[in-house]
Amino acid sequence: MSSASKLRVALLGATGETGSSIMRGLLASTQPHYEITALARAASVNKPALLEYKKQGVQIAAVDLDGPEDALAATLKDFDVVISAIGPAELMQQVQLANACKAAGVGRFVPCCFATIVPPKGILVLRDIKEDIINHIKKIYLPYTIIDVGWWYNTTLPRLPSGKIDYALPPYEQSIAGEGTTPYALTDVGDIGIYTARIVGDPRTLNKYVFAYTELKTQLEIYDLIEKLSGEKVVRNHVSREDIAGGVAKAEATKLVVGTPEFYQLAIFQYWNTWGVRGDNQPEYAKYLGYLLAKDLYPDLQGKPYLQYCQEVLDGRAHGVYKGITFFE
Amino acid sequence: MSSASKLRVALLGATGETGSSIMRGLLASTQPHYEITALARAASVNKPALLEYKKQGVQIAAVDLDGPEDALAATLKDFDVVISAIGPAELMQQVQLANACKAAGVGRFVPCCFATIVPPKGILVLRDIKEDIINHIKKIYLPYTIIDVGWWYNTTLPRLPSGKIDYALPPYEQSIAGEGTTPYALTDVGDIGIYTARIVGDPRTLNKYVFAYTELKTQLEIYDLIEKLSGEKVVRNHVSREDIAGGVAKAEATKLVVGTPEFYQLAIFQYWNTWGVRGDNQPEYAKYLGYLLAKDLYPDLQGKPYLQYCQEVLDGRAHGVYKGITFFE
Repeated sequence: MSSASKLRVALLGATGETGSSIMRGLLASTQPHYEITALARAASVNKPALLEYKKQGVQIAAVDLDGPEDALAATLKDFDVVISAIGPAELMQQVQLANACKAAGVGRFVPCCFATIVPPKGILVLRDIKEDIINHIKKIYLPYTIIDVGWWYNTTLPRLPSGKIDYALPPYEQSIAGEGTTPYALTDVGDIGIYTARIVGDPRTLNKYVFAYTELKTQLEIYDLIEKLSGEKVVRNHVSREDIAGGVAKAEATKLVVGTPEFYQLAIFQYWNTWGVRGDNQPEYAKYLGYLLAKDLYPDLQGKPYLQYCQEVLDGRAHGVYKGITFFE
Repeated sequence: MSSASKLRVALLGATGETGSSIMRGLLASTQPHYEITALARAASVNKPALLEYKKQGVQIAAVDLDGPEDALAATLKDFDVVISAIGPAELMQQVQLANACKAAGVGRFVPCCFATIVPPKGILVLRDIKEDIINHIKKIYLPYTIIDVGWWYNTTLPRLPSGKIDYALPPYEQSIAGEGTTPYALTDVGDIGIYTARIVGDPRTLNKYVFAYTELKTQLEIYDLIEKLSGEKVVRNHVSREDIAGGVAKAEATKLVVGTPEFYQLAIFQYWNTWGVRGDNQPEYAKYLGYLLAKDLYPDLQGKPYLQYCQEVLDGRAHGVYKGITFFE
C-alpha cells in the first residue's frame, strides 16, 4: 500500500465495456478510496471518454505495451493495484504488462478475466489464452487476483417482436443452448466494477481467484420471464447438443485466432458448450476450481437482480453492450 | 466413502520408489484404516514385491491403462481414493486413468506429483506434463488432491571420499546449484507415504493442493553437515548460474522426451534452476500457488529430521533410491 491513505490503482482499457464498469466502480468506492490512473495508448490520451474521467479526478498515463519494459515499469512504480481490462485480441500483451508490474513492485495485478467459469484448458480458446497469462504471472511470482463474473445479463435476452428492446441487445441473434435448462451464473456488466472495487482492496483476495456473480438462471427461465414481463411471445432458437458438439469439434480443428470472423463464428459454440451443455459456469464448479465466492466474502454486497435488469430494459433505461466501443484505446 | 468403515484405496505403481513409500504409509495408517488394492499390469501381478504386499492383506488387481475405459472403470468402481505413483515416462496415461475414475465415481484421484514446488508451466518439463494432467482432471470435474513433497533427502548428499555412504546415494554425482545458498524444501522418501495416508483421508484436502515437506535447507548447509558428522572433506562441484541458464536454454530449445538420455542430461538444469536459482521449492511460494501446508494441517505429524537421515546414512541404515526399481510394473 502506498503511503497515502488511498490505494493507488491503475486501470488499462478504462473506456472498454468491462473497463468503463470498473472505472465507475473505482470512482464510486469509498471503502477503500482509490487514487485512479487510466493507462492508455499515447494516441488515445485525449479521447473524450478519457477526458471525461479526468474531470472526475482520474489521472491519465500514456503507456506502450510493446515498448521498453523499464519505461512501462517506471510508469507503474508504486501502484498498489494494476487492473487490466484489455481487449480479447490483445490478451497476450499482458505478458509485458505483468513483467513490468513485477519490475515495478506492484502490489497486485488483476489480469483480464471478468467472464465465465471455465476449465483452465481445452474448452474455451479465450480462457486458454487467459490461463497462459495466469501461468506467466505465477512463473514470475507476481501478486495477483483473478476475478470472474459469469455471463453478462446484457447478452442474455432474446429480441422481442416489437423491437422495443433492440437498443439494449448485442448486435447478434440470441440462441438457446440445447434444452436451455442448464443454470448459468449471471451478472450485470454495470456491477463488474462494484465487485472489482471491493475485491481488489481486500487483503483476503490476494493471490486468490474470486467468482463475483449475482444470479443463477437457466435460459428457459429468462425467456419465460421476458415473455411474462413484456406480454410478447419470443422466438426460441434452440441449438441442439449435436450442433453444439459439431461446432466445438470444428473450433478444435481450426487454429482459432481471436478477433477473426472465424473466431466469432466458432467461439460461440465453445461458450454454448461450456455454460449451456457442460454447466461449468456455476458456483459449485468455481469452488471446485479454487475460487472464493464474492457472496461469501461480502454478504452485504448485492448485485442488481436480474428482474430489475429486465424491467430497466423494458423501460428503456438499460445499458446496451458492444455498441462499437473498442476494448483498449 | 464406501459403506465399510475402512476407506477403499487403490494404488498404481505400488512397487516404485514413490509408490512403495505410499504403500507402507497406507498399511501403517490406523486413522483412517485403509482397505488397499494395488493396481498392476496383468504381466506383473505375480511379481515378488506385489506378492509380499498380498501377504499383508493388500488386494492385487490387474489393469490395462491402454485398454477399454469401461473395463478400467469397472475395476475402480466404489473406490474412495485412487492414487497414482506412475513412472515419469507414463504420466500421460493418467488421462485414461482419470477418465475411468470419473466414470467409476471415484471419490478422490491423486495424480502423480510427489515432487518439488514449481510454477505450473514453462520451468520444468515434468511439471508441464503433470499440469496437463491436472488440467484434464479439472476439465472432467473429477475430485482430486495434489500432493507435493519437495526434493527428496535421498538425493541430496555428496559422496564421501571413503565411499562409505555410496550405498545410499543415487547413481550420479551430486552438484551444487549456483552458490548453494538457496533454501529448498526437503522430505525423506520414506515419509511420502506417511504424509499421503494422512492427506487422502482428510476431507479438508479434497480438491486442494497440499505441500508436505519436512525441512528447509540450503545445499551448503547440507554439505557442511555431512562433513561435520562424517569428519570427511567432500568435493564441492558448483554449477554456475551461467551454466545453469545455458542448460535451461538448451533444454527449452530441445523437444525433451521424458526418459531419453537427452532428457536426463538436460532436465537436471531445469531442476537446478527451479530449486537452486529461482528458489521455487519453498513453502511461501507454495502458499502463493494455492497449496495448503501439511505442517499447518497436521502439527502433530513430524517427518524424519534431516539430521536423523544423515546419521542413518552414516550408520549404514539408510534407504538408497533408484536402485534399478522400475516405476510401474
